Amino acid sequence: MSPLEEAVKKSDLIYVAIPVDVTIPIVEKILNLITDKQIVADAGSTKYALSKAIENHPMRKRFVLSHPMWGTEYSGPEAAVKNAFVGRACVICDKEKTDKDAVQLLENLYTELGMNIVYMNAEEHDVHAAYVSHISHITSFALANTVLEKEKEEEAIFELSGGGFESTVRLAKSSASMWVPVFMQNRENVLDVLNEHITQLRKFKASLEKENVNFLVELIENANKIKKIIK
Amino acid sequence: MSPLEEAVKKSDLIYVAIPVDVTIPIVEKILNLITDKQIVADAGSTKYALSKAIENHPMRKRFVLSHPMWGTEYSGPEAAVKNAFVGRACVICDKEKTDKDAVQLLENLYTELGMNIVYMNAEEHDVHAAYVSHISHITSFALANTVLEKEKEEEAIFELSGGGFESTVRLAKSSASMWVPVFMQNRENVLDVLNEHITQLRKFKASLEKENVNFLVELIENANKIKKIIK
Repeated sequence: MSPLEEAVKKSDLIYVAIPVDVTIPIVEKILNLITDKQIVADAGSTKYALSKAIENHPMRKRFVLSHPMWGTEYSGPEAAVKNAFVGRACVICDKEKTDKDAVQLLENLYTELGMNIVYMNAEEHDVHAAYVSHISHITSFALANTVLEKEKEEEAIFELSGGGFESTVRLAKSSASMWVPVFMQNRENVLDVLNEHITQLRKFKASLEKENVNFLVELIENANKIKKIIK
Repeated sequence: MSPLEEAVKKSDLIYVAIPVDVTIPIVEKILNLITDKQIVADAGSTKYALSKAIENHPMRKRFVLSHPMWGTEYSGPEAAVKNAFVGRACVICDKEKTDKDAVQLLENLYTELGMNIVYMNAEEHDVHAAYVSHISHITSFALANTVLEKEKEEEAIFELSGGGFESTVRLAKSSASMWVPVFMQNRENVLDVLNEHITQLRKFKASLEKENVNFLVELIENANKIKKIIK
């Protein structure tokens, strides 16, 4: 018996929290091993590719597609933070394709951690995740590359980084092994938002090049509307 | 006697902390009113235009060009935060153009607040500020506009914003009246960094369009170097 077979055999709940590219083959293997008394769930940042990969599996109903939306730029057990999930959203996708007892167990688990459960289908999840999570990471990576390219004085970055840079660049510390598979699986949605983001930056560029103060004010006041949505 | 004349007359130290476009005319008026026993300082996010505007003023030596680099997206007295400046950088520019007693007083004041004093000339300051502060604000404004444009479901933004969006978009709540004058005064440096930032985002776009995983990994691993500079 392989270590995976042995581990699955001993478990009531198998929770898969690994990069999204390796999630798919591992989940398929696990579903091949379980009985209909066991439950499997994932925690990945993309949901659609996984949902398609397992849609015809006979054990599909024992699988809970879930995405607890919280994380830091750090990984591994030493990156744990107490009460990290309190008040955060956990998305459960395609609930109707999963047995009620399996959904209920995961809902209890996430609610116990203080999370708010949000339901969507896998496709919708990936669109929203591109907007509110994936693009922020790309922006932050690109900002780090910009500053590393332009600012040759590391001392100056270090000393002056209080000026807003620290918070916008925080996500740029995130690992490639986690994020490359996310961007690749959600490529079309991410490209769509990224194109819009470049268009928006070009508006700032145009307003500065033309010294068009009114346009610049308009762009910033439009951005300020985010205040109404995010506390 | 005007209210400004009266206020200046009564003061040992006049500290100007207002948007950078109105700083210049106000500082000129104040310098016209002071004696060589009084001290004037500013707290603006740009330094070069102000340094040029006052360079030939007979009271130039009583003026301290300073930039305490900390702030939030909020303004006004109700936005005050206890111990806000502890461990943050305060840039003092063109120190050699100011009387020693005036520099000393401001240094004592900032050090008392827990700040680290950094010296540069006004021109260098504006270049570094474009890299580590101004571009972060433009990125954040543009990101807010992107998401407001693409994501029509405000509920989804609100519920899912834990996924990295909150920290990258925080600065987008900042006011136009403060930031438009900063961007206009530091236009050339900001445009320079903004062009580089658009170039960097286009690299992410190209890597996704071509499904070039190696290039994407390379871009992210380069961005990760920021870890060595920012704790």
